[in-house]
Amino acid sequence: MVSRIGREIELSPVELGSRLGKKVEINMASGSPDPATIPVKEIEKAYQEVLAAKGSSSLFYPGAGGQQELIDEISRYLPEIGIRSKDPVVVTSGAQHGIELLSKYLLDNDPIIVENPTFVETFSAMKLRSSVVLPVNIDSKGISVDELDKLTRITRPEVVYVIPNCHNPGGVNLSDERRKRIAEIAEERGFYVIEDDPYRPIAGCTPSPIKDYDKAGRVIHVSSFSKILAPGLRIGFIIANKEIAEKVSLLEQLDFSTSTINQYIVSYLLKTGLVTSRSKNLHLHYATKMKVLIDSLTDAGLTDFNEPTCGFFLLLDLKRDAFRVLEEANKKGLVFVPAKGFFLRGGETKARFSITMPNEEQIKRGVEILKNVIKDVYA
Amino acid sequence: MVSRIGREIELSPVELGSRLGKKVEINMASGSPDPATIPVKEIEKAYQEVLAAKGSSSLFYPGAGGQQELIDEISRYLPEIGIRSKDPVVVTSGAQHGIELLSKYLLDNDPIIVENPTFVETFSAMKLRSSVVLPVNIDSKGISVDELDKLTRITRPEVVYVIPNCHNPGGVNLSDERRKRIAEIAEERGFYVIEDDPYRPIAGCTPSPIKDYDKAGRVIHVSSFSKILAPGLRIGFIIANKEIAEKVSLLEQLDFSTSTINQYIVSYLLKTGLVTSRSKNLHLHYATKMKVLIDSLTDAGLTDFNEPTCGFFLLLDLKRDAFRVLEEANKKGLVFVPAKGFFLRGGETKARFSITMPNEEQIKRGVEILKNVIKDVYA
Repeated sequence: MVSRIGREIELSPVELGSRLGKKVEINMASGSPDPATIPVKEIEKAYQEVLAAKGSSSLFYPGAGGQQELIDEISRYLPEIGIRSKDPVVVTSGAQHGIELLSKYLLDNDPIIVENPTFVETFSAMKLRSSVVLPVNIDSKGISVDELDKLTRITRPEVVYVIPNCHNPGGVNLSDERRKRIAEIAEERGFYVIEDDPYRPIAGCTPSPIKDYDKAGRVIHVSSFSKILAPGLRIGFIIANKEIAEKVSLLEQLDFSTSTINQYIVSYLLKTGLVTSRSKNLHLHYATKMKVLIDSLTDAGLTDFNEPTCGFFLLLDLKRDAFRVLEEANKKGLVFVPAKGFFLRGGETKARFSITMPNEEQIKRGVEILKNVIKDVYA
Repeated sequence: MVSRIGREIELSPVELGSRLGKKVEINMASGSPDPATIPVKEIEKAYQEVLAAKGSSSLFYPGAGGQQELIDEISRYLPEIGIRSKDPVVVTSGAQHGIELLSKYLLDNDPIIVENPTFVETFSAMKLRSSVVLPVNIDSKGISVDELDKLTRITRPEVVYVIPNCHNPGGVNLSDERRKRIAEIAEERGFYVIEDDPYRPIAGCTPSPIKDYDKAGRVIHVSSFSKILAPGLRIGFIIANKEIAEKVSLLEQLDFSTSTINQYIVSYLLKTGLVTSRSKNLHLHYATKMKVLIDSLTDAGLTDFNEPTCGFFLLLDLKRDAFRVLEEANKKGLVFVPAKGFFLRGGETKARFSITMPNEEQIKRGVEILKNVIKDVYA
């Protein structure tokens, strides 16, 4: 009998956007990092060096939980991106895989709370194992902690899922004060916080993670090398209390999906200092492009958005059906992601624009197309 | 609330063996291919060529279901290893990941049937989602089809899990006639057969897969490049009817774990003909080593085993508690895997010996240690 997950899985709007994006001139749908930032030469050298030094042992089966060498390098790297937690690190095949493993472990048809809007792909892994999903709104400072406080007085979620930095799709950062409060409420009410933080390495200056305020083992930090190095390596990690870390490691026996050699590649690039130096600089590249998008939208009179603090995404209220606008924009060579799928409540008129694939000129042209579509179709 | 999978997952005996194996001189526990066979140079060249030709696009997010280029290359390769099925191919992070995805999709606390013994790691992914697990014995011709026939007259399994070639841990091949019968019974009784066939590329001459007899879309073929190239790439695939292939592709959105660049590496190595030429020759290497093991055991008077047809493993009946024998052997520098964990019924005195890590001299020495342990401890 097909399982519930099997019955309910759907093509995500992000995946749909990514398929459309491959066919158009201006792709503002992609969640991939800017191709120009991917350190292809350094990665090529890393494969050479690792294969020369380790030979066939870099191509064996991965151990469940990750290669010790990579775990050690990650532990050394964490303070450099402002993470002080001393909880164990488990290597995963990217952040998405980490959240899939955590959902598989923690959720048994339990209630969960997510941000409204939230990242739809990671959310799916949780939703398909939940009885009820309760949304809490975000504003320019991230998830509303007052709403979360009220809601967790009257409900008992197993997991609260939060994206604290460069929110996808919201663009905003969670304030320092709210991070602290979330950890406190989690401890008091006994739920787990999944802190999904793949953007931290490219976020520039940003508050300490929620995990740093975690006194009761209630916060699980999920991260990735996808934005700071390359998504195609599929290497990420989680930081969790000992029990969860051990169980998630064991669960990796079920899929054994994390490439051994790619673990050594990331380990090598951490050791050479490449990841650290990129963590110091890469945010400027994205900030420059984001400024072009913000300025272009402002010039075009499209101003219904929270200004993104960092990252790849800006969430714009088009004030009209976003799928309809996409349909017209697509004809003129622009693709973005209608944001309805990211929302549990509302969102029909919102759209996620990414700055990663287009260059500055294309961002300007994309906004021009958007402006004209809105003018022509809704004059 | 921790899920059933979270509560019931355990350290597998294979993983345990692999951890022990790292510390001893003669490792006959490992399921990894012989390190000497891993084409390190060719893989290194492949990384160079792919990165030079494709640049950052080889390092983007993987699409759910696999890169089209790799799917096309696999489809061209299939007839070369005797697979004629025209059903769709879905790329996975190795066979283990394929079986995890299939279990996630197909099983909703349903009865399943597995071979006794069966491969414990893939089995876990199914067991943790099943209500009842029914064992069917294997003999020198693989799973007993008469037993399967009888059992499926009175039970309704959702899945029957079969390892047709170079059985792990049994060493045997399923006979041609039984393959045909299994596909017929599956069609008649309406269950799915998961045909786990990662050894086919190194099996030499072997009968057509069960999948080739599948007229009703009831057989799912699971395969891997782990044995023919390298396990550390984590690339495998499944062949299934259109509906299952589509759903499993969608389920990959939940973990997105399959490295993009490694997909291109395998695609490149298929294109250059390396995989094909290895498929023609590599079985001889293992056959030679297996003969050393068989001869040494026979000389030592340890003859309670079915002679393996191909692959890595020989299942020996030690006629005494295998954990106890392992304990003593370990002290003398030999590790193997006690096979109890592979059995649903019996197996306490059986042990799985692998020929991949030790060289011929070490195989002989390993058998010598085994013989002495048995003599000393049980004199």
